[in-house]
Amino acid sequence: MERTLIGELGKHVGETVSISGWVDVRRDQGKMVFFDFRDRSGKVQGVVLPASPAMEASKEIRGEYAVRVQGTVNKRPEKNVQAERQNGDIELEITALEILAEAAPLPFDMSLTGFNLDLTTQLDHRALALRHPRLQAIFKVQSVIIDSFREFMKSQDFFEFQAPAITPAVAEGGAEVFEVNYFDKKAYLSQSPQLYKQIVMSAFERVFSVNKIFRAEPSATTRHLTEVVSLDAELAFIDSWTDVRDVSEETVRWILRKVERQCADELKLLGTTLPVMIEKTPTVSLTEAQEKIFAKTGRDVRGEKDLNPEDERSLCEIIKEETGSDFVYVYGYPTRKKPFYVYPNPEHPEFNEGMDLLCRGVEWLSGGRRINDYNQLMTHVKEWGMDPEKISMFLEAFRYGVPPEGGFAFGAERMTMQMLELKNVREASMFPRDMNRIDTLITKPEDEILP
Amino acid sequence: MERTLIGELGKHVGETVSISGWVDVRRDQGKMVFFDFRDRSGKVQGVVLPASPAMEASKEIRGEYAVRVQGTVNKRPEKNVQAERQNGDIELEITALEILAEAAPLPFDMSLTGFNLDLTTQLDHRALALRHPRLQAIFKVQSVIIDSFREFMKSQDFFEFQAPAITPAVAEGGAEVFEVNYFDKKAYLSQSPQLYKQIVMSAFERVFSVNKIFRAEPSATTRHLTEVVSLDAELAFIDSWTDVRDVSEETVRWILRKVERQCADELKLLGTTLPVMIEKTPTVSLTEAQEKIFAKTGRDVRGEKDLNPEDERSLCEIIKEETGSDFVYVYGYPTRKKPFYVYPNPEHPEFNEGMDLLCRGVEWLSGGRRINDYNQLMTHVKEWGMDPEKISMFLEAFRYGVPPEGGFAFGAERMTMQMLELKNVREASMFPRDMNRIDTLITKPEDEILP
Repeated sequence: MERTLIGELGKHVGETVSISGWVDVRRDQGKMVFFDFRDRSGKVQGVVLPASPAMEASKEIRGEYAVRVQGTVNKRPEKNVQAERQNGDIELEITALEILAEAAPLPFDMSLTGFNLDLTTQLDHRALALRHPRLQAIFKVQSVIIDSFREFMKSQDFFEFQAPAITPAVAEGGAEVFEVNYFDKKAYLSQSPQLYKQIVMSAFERVFSVNKIFRAEPSATTRHLTEVVSLDAELAFIDSWTDVRDVSEETVRWILRKVERQCADELKLLGTTLPVMIEKTPTVSLTEAQEKIFAKTGRDVRGEKDLNPEDERSLCEIIKEETGSDFVYVYGYPTRKKPFYVYPNPEHPEFNEGMDLLCRGVEWLSGGRRINDYNQLMTHVKEWGMDPEKISMFLEAFRYGVPPEGGFAFGAERMTMQMLELKNVREASMFPRDMNRIDTLITKPEDEILP
Repeated sequence: MERTLIGELGKHVGETVSISGWVDVRRDQGKMVFFDFRDRSGKVQGVVLPASPAMEASKEIRGEYAVRVQGTVNKRPEKNVQAERQNGDIELEITALEILAEAAPLPFDMSLTGFNLDLTTQLDHRALALRHPRLQAIFKVQSVIIDSFREFMKSQDFFEFQAPAITPAVAEGGAEVFEVNYFDKKAYLSQSPQLYKQIVMSAFERVFSVNKIFRAEPSATTRHLTEVVSLDAELAFIDSWTDVRDVSEETVRWILRKVERQCADELKLLGTTLPVMIEKTPTVSLTEAQEKIFAKTGRDVRGEKDLNPEDERSLCEIIKEETGSDFVYVYGYPTRKKPFYVYPNPEHPEFNEGMDLLCRGVEWLSGGRRINDYNQLMTHVKEWGMDPEKISMFLEAFRYGVPPEGGFAFGAERMTMQMLELKNVREASMFPRDMNRIDTLITKPEDEILP
């Protein structure tokens, strides 16, 4: 008999069907055995009645067995209907149970309510833990974030390219880079597709990529991973950095809308409410932000080169109170505190046209206008003490007519973490890598720092 | 004035518009200057008439300048219409020309007909070469291949996940792996997401990923890169390896159809015809393939463990002649010649249920059924001499009920190369990496081997 997906069973009331899936829960009531079965489309309850030929098999089967089940789809009596659950109005009366694969006894409770593992145990049993509804919900949301980013980019004529992971020299120095033994020469893992996306923008005008980046972050915090998915965009022919801001704002708005629509069940399960993006996200300069913080809290951070975490939280609270927006753009950072390619404000060149999007007290996305003039770029390369030889391919692009341009980027794991208000970014990575762990622990257990 | 995209100009005949783009070609006829302008939406011809206020600027502007152009969209007289070209029936009468960014003199001819660079020169000037229509066409096709893969996967309920690039130990040994200095410990760059996709499949049933893989291939051939994009799929609850074959066939069919529809201009420009996929792609076992080759060519390769390149070409020719199909599946390779996870045929365990899809004499895609039974897997792990500790996370998945399953994979660059009949896979990678080159040459020029 052909397989019916569990999510389709409601259309087959009164019929005999065959489903395939995993045993989510088994409840043995002696005379009758109840199961919840799970496949990619959802869950359904099944029952083995005393006279069922499946009774013998039902005694043997445990949680996470993979099974093929034959049975009749029955409407539940009104009093047993669980309206809020998928298939809560039906039940499968089981006539045959075939074991496709056995499962060892589970090392911990996999039920939604029973699942309260510390992160270390979750990671020690990653393969199994990925079957849990909470983890499935997190990665469902993450896949929607990534996919809706691409979808919006394509709708705006952005061209997708593949940024490389292996790079030659490290342009800006920096210790936080992984070295690769490349045929007995040195190569490095990319910390950002920034220069590549600017090159490809110079040829395709509007570009985006979804690619891995790597940071040899030698500390274990709740916010850092050594390998993350970077979502990047870059566009030419802008009139101002505010064009970049506007595209990034509509990108985030699109993602939020998609997550809201496609992940309603997941958000409910995770107990999260999405942040509020009002019609026009407020924008303040760093200086204005510092004035606001001083006026509201009395903390005088005016003249500081950046916002610290406390400032970011204060600013978000102030903006929320003033406008109802959970989001706020901050622009105009000190030019010398940012990378060489960020565009200085022509009227106040000590401040640049880089920007950050903050939400609920933390940064969600960064971007801004870049220098497009070759001579200005070369001046910065010198002032920043960089070796032009190491970025010769990048510089070549700018020798041949690059119009005003800018772009933005954000990390998939961090956005997942922040959107779902997770406490640790490791929860937002299927196979998180840090200094202690690559799937399994690589340090001695007593040396592991798990924040 | 608001920018109009070049591709939209046909809707604005008789109107004054502003376009932004690059100077594709400039033809100075003394009294008049003609330009072809290019933006992300296409090309259009513009003309500066003798009395135009833009005449002075038009004398200064060269190829690849980024410009903003104001002008009137005129219908061309019937005799000047070039029906086969985009905007061949209109012309922009230029009234103002603003330089957004200057371009240095071009180091080589960038026109379609004039462009005949050797690959080394193309790679030495990658940033500029990416603007050429031939390269733009190649990467447009590649982006459609990747995007249509994802699109088809999603339409079939496959869940997208992110496979890691950094991996702990190398499960199967093998010299062709890059070592990473990971906080003074050893880590490696992933050669395949195989084990990860099987883990994620065990939790999400049907999964796919688009991720980088790395091979430290110490030889320079026309078919090898050290970093490529791997497109991977894996699905549970199959009845037979033929279910995997069927999904992979429909995936390739979908991709071909999308490329045909969305890249008609690019295929024409590149002078390529897509291969023919008939309603049901022929499938032969390795043994049958060898019999066919013997019968047709007289070359006796019966009993060989694999098809060599000549065999692959012969088989494709034979199948084409017999059925009209450019594609053919080959299955049933010797079990011990393939990785430990490939499923042995239960009736003839010396042959497995792995498969390859060949087209036009080369392999396009590989896959097959995998071992899903934990005990059988452990037996293979021992027989293949592997250390189960190094794949403990993978093995854990199979302890908890994994039904019959399989999957397939192909490389984006190689499929692009083969679909477009390119001679060298480097042409199908935007930033190709090999033992001689990571953007720039890393070996001495005299040591470079460019096949």
